[in-house]
Amino acid sequence: MPQNCLYCENKAALDALMIKIADLSVSTLYLFREQSHPGRCVVAYKDHIGQQFEIPEEEWIRFMLDTRRAAIAIDKAFHPDKINFGAYSDTLKHAHWHLVPKYKDGFEWGGTFEMNPKKTYLTDEEYADIIARIKAEL
Amino acid sequence: MPQNCLYCENKAALDALMIKIADLSVSTLYLFREQSHPGRCVVAYKDHIGQQFEIPEEEWIRFMLDTRRAAIAIDKAFHPDKINFGAYSDTLKHAHWHLVPKYKDGFEWGGTFEMNPKKTYLTDEEYADIIARIKAEL
Repeated sequence: MPQNCLYCENKAALDALMIKIADLSVSTLYLFREQSHPGRCVVAYKDHIGQQFEIPEEEWIRFMLDTRRAAIAIDKAFHPDKINFGAYSDTLKHAHWHLVPKYKDGFEWGGTFEMNPKKTYLTDEEYADIIARIKAEL
Repeated sequence: MPQNCLYCENKAALDALMIKIADLSVSTLYLFREQSHPGRCVVAYKDHIGQQFEIPEEEWIRFMLDTRRAAIAIDKAFHPDKINFGAYSDTLKHAHWHLVPKYKDGFEWGGTFEMNPKKTYLTDEEYADIIARIKAEL
């Protein structure tokens, strides 16, 4: 449980980037504070494992089904035109997925997505509203 | 089977972007011709379905296990420091994964990855060598 890993021990770094929505089967769902893409979330695996395929197969299936469940909830809550999935984390060795809703002709439509555009931040009330809408669909 | 979809019918567009490596359980593995990231591949689902979570759950698990198998083969063949996974395809409604090996201090290390950097293309012999190395590990 490395102290410098935001998912393991560095709670201040985690809180600066995301807000917990719910515990899933083998992972935790977070709302990404940067909301250039309304509904953008992160699903982080419960253990400190870097590569997706280093997670034992049966556990990885559960992790992917958690990610699917989160994507379906975002889809129902926000009705984006597409949900992108990305796993990068070259230097932070703790497997997680970015779930990024895209809206036709909106920000970054038709391309990939930035790790963190650092453009759109909301009020606590707005975050609470988004979290409630996603939670209601989980 | 839309004619404008490169995975379904537009073989010329597909050939310009990638080279088939192998059929997997419910998908096809391709080598991405643009090789700024040595070993970069695409895994495309067999059917024309856009959203990952619109693929029926049991089939999606098989698709993800195909993707895992491909990532493990790339890892064994090329020993990257991290393999990134990305699914975007906002406008092309046919589910596929980009598998992008990253190398410490190499191109795009520490970030996301471009959809297509359009920088590094190889000879037919070099493509054949990479394909053989990945196939040997599948």
